[in-house]
Amino acid sequence: MMRKKAQRRSNCPISFGLDIFGDKWSLLVLRDMTFFGKTTYGEFLASDEGIATNILADRLKTLEHAGIIKKKDDAYALTKKGQDLMPVLVEMAAWGVTHDPQTPLSQDYISLLRKDPTHVRRTLSKKSNS
Amino acid sequence: MMRKKAQRRSNCPISFGLDIFGDKWSLLVLRDMTFFGKTTYGEFLASDEGIATNILADRLKTLEHAGIIKKKDDAYALTKKGQDLMPVLVEMAAWGVTHDPQTPLSQDYISLLRKDPTHVRRTLSKKSNS
Repeated sequence: MMRKKAQRRSNCPISFGLDIFGDKWSLLVLRDMTFFGKTTYGEFLASDEGIATNILADRLKTLEHAGIIKKKDDAYALTKKGQDLMPVLVEMAAWGVTHDPQTPLSQDYISLLRKDPTHVRRTLSKKSNS
Repeated sequence: MMRKKAQRRSNCPISFGLDIFGDKWSLLVLRDMTFFGKTTYGEFLASDEGIATNILADRLKTLEHAGIIKKKDDAYALTKKGQDLMPVLVEMAAWGVTHDPQTPLSQDYISLLRKDPTHVRRTLSKKSNS
């Protein structure tokens, strides 16, 4: 799913982003990096949602090609362009906490997340594994 | 692509949302409703990105089933749950304006959008068609 950029169908800035990360699995990998500090293929693979190996490999390639993540040895890191997606992920989390009747998280976590997403990394990680 | 909810693989609030709207086309339809005030199948179909009829029909069903949009006669409207996705879309737009070298929009639009997303609806619409 390496998406071609030759055909630009729209000037919409939302469409621009969605052409790169507009699928569930890309955004879950970005969540893993942003909030849980995961860096390796094996760590992404171990996430609760159970991403398939071929999809993971494809999404990592696409994100790297778009300059959202970079690879050094076996570790992936967010670039500045990737770090800039944090507000998108924070707002998605806020929406989920508000509308998922089964969520174990509270609005307080979202307030913390908005103030300092890195500060609550470990707390969120514990919660999501409970 | 009506997604089944029987199997809950994760308590992550981001994953909860992505199971519903985690694809490019769902989010573009939500953009059309949120920022451009589009309400009908025909209007969604006419958007620059060129959504296919079968995909559009499928995504509308999924969003309606999840309570994000509601249908009355031939018009779709966002529910409160759908309106609550506005911050996600605004942050995606902010990211696109920052990182798309070809964007016709400025950071000023994003500031306006953050302050009052409905106020700039017509302005944004004109810009995106230019």
